[in-house]
Amino acid sequence: MLGRLNHVAIAVPDLAAASAVYRDTLGATVTEPQALPEHGVTVVFIDVGNTKIELLEPLGETSSIAGFLQKNPAGAMHHVCYEVADILAARDQLKASGMRILGDGEPKIGAHGKPVLFLHPKDFQGTLVELEQV
Amino acid sequence: MLGRLNHVAIAVPDLAAASAVYRDTLGATVTEPQALPEHGVTVVFIDVGNTKIELLEPLGETSSIAGFLQKNPAGAMHHVCYEVADILAARDQLKASGMRILGDGEPKIGAHGKPVLFLHPKDFQGTLVELEQV
Repeated sequence: MLGRLNHVAIAVPDLAAASAVYRDTLGATVTEPQALPEHGVTVVFIDVGNTKIELLEPLGETSSIAGFLQKNPAGAMHHVCYEVADILAARDQLKASGMRILGDGEPKIGAHGKPVLFLHPKDFQGTLVELEQV
Repeated sequence: MLGRLNHVAIAVPDLAAASAVYRDTLGATVTEPQALPEHGVTVVFIDVGNTKIELLEPLGETSSIAGFLQKNPAGAMHHVCYEVADILAARDQLKASGMRILGDGEPKIGAHGKPVLFLHPKDFQGTLVELEQV
């Protein structure tokens, strides 16, 4: 079921400052910031050749990552995203194995315009897992 | 400077249980456990096609991840590892940019038999960054 690692997401308090570290110090290419109001984040992506790093900054007063950044004010790794061929089939298989899907269990459209779901970190050793249909 | 993402490391309290989740529930191939006493960890790798997930379990009483797991008893993402062509050149360039290298600043041999260094998480938005020469 588990496909390629689409990205690793890192929540940051200051997207411009974090982007500068990756661009200027590490020499990476950083995309322009993209606001995703329905996810409560502004994101940039960093292409590292085989996968991407996603930097997330809170957007709006009800951002889903605001609480995470309160616990980790300097920033921290937030989730990993794996690609799946069929997100509904993957969801149903995971649910049958006792895994919990966050929210209402229905895919939302993610940063790449593709359906995504999030799985409960308690079922994956404290790691928040996103699935993206590609 | 920044090369491919070699792996994402996740610290787990129970390597066998975590391996079973990836193998049995997610259908991934998990390597046999490898003890790395000089790093204070036992590791397995999960090949996800374009990169790897490394699961880390503490080994020995002075394990470097024991404290991390005390703060995150269920487990948590621990570090990301990027490949570099020349680890000493990368280190010197990072130091010249004001980035801090952990330990004595000299590469150690990592899980793949290659030289590795760790960079201070405070310089990378709370993310512990490993560099591996490939």
